[in-house]
Amino acid sequence: MPAFEHHVFVCCHTRPEGAPRPPCTANGTSELHAKLQQLTKAAGLGSKVRINKSGCLDQCEHGPVVVVYPEAVWYGNVQPEDAAAIVEEHLVGGRPVERLRIAEECLNSKNCPHQ
Amino acid sequence: MPAFEHHVFVCCHTRPEGAPRPPCTANGTSELHAKLQQLTKAAGLGSKVRINKSGCLDQCEHGPVVVVYPEAVWYGNVQPEDAAAIVEEHLVGGRPVERLRIAEECLNSKNCPHQ
Repeated sequence: MPAFEHHVFVCCHTRPEGAPRPPCTANGTSELHAKLQQLTKAAGLGSKVRINKSGCLDQCEHGPVVVVYPEAVWYGNVQPEDAAAIVEEHLVGGRPVERLRIAEECLNSKNCPHQ
Repeated sequence: MPAFEHHVFVCCHTRPEGAPRPPCTANGTSELHAKLQQLTKAAGLGSKVRINKSGCLDQCEHGPVVVVYPEAVWYGNVQPEDAAAIVEEHLVGGRPVERLRIAEECLNSKNCPHQ
C-alpha cells in the first residue's frame, strides 16, 4: 500500500529572469501549494494525502504544473483558485479534473506544440 | 501512460539547526540527487526516468529519503553510494532494492518506532 493515497507534487522551481524556459513560480505556486494544503486538511485528508513542493517537473511550458501520484495525473496552468476543484473532485471524489489536465501528447514530448 | 516510467523524488529539504525533526540534507542528498541523475542518463534512461528534487516527504526519521512513483517504493537512509543499486536494479532492472526500503510499518505512521 502506498504511504499516501495521493501524493501531490507542486512545482516550485524558480529560474533567473531571461531563462530559456519559463518558471512555474511566476504565477504564484507558493499560494497554490498553501491552498492545496489548507483545503486538504480541511477535508480531513491530512494523513492520507501529502501536498509536496517539488523541483522542476520538466513540463515548464505548461506551468504552473502539478502531478498527482500514484495515478500520474498531470495538471497544467494551475492557478490558486483551481485548488478547490483538485481537492474536492480529485483528492476527495477520486475523479481527476479534466479541464486542468495537460494533453497526453504534450507530456514529456519533444513534439509538444507549446515548446 | 505516465509521462515517466519512473519518477524519482529525492528529499532535499533543509531545516535550521536544532529543529525537532532531522533534515534529509544532513547526509548529502545533493550528491545523491546528482549521482542518480548522472547514472540514469548514462543508462540511457534520460527521457523515460525523471530524477527530481522535492521538499519534505514527511518520513524524516528515515532520511535521506527517496520515493519512486508510480510504484510508490520508498527508500530510507539512502547514501550517494546507493545510487548505482537504485539505477541498475530498480530503474533499469525493475526490481526495487529491498535492503534500502523503509519498513511498511514505518511509512507515514505515528507508531513508527524511530519517531
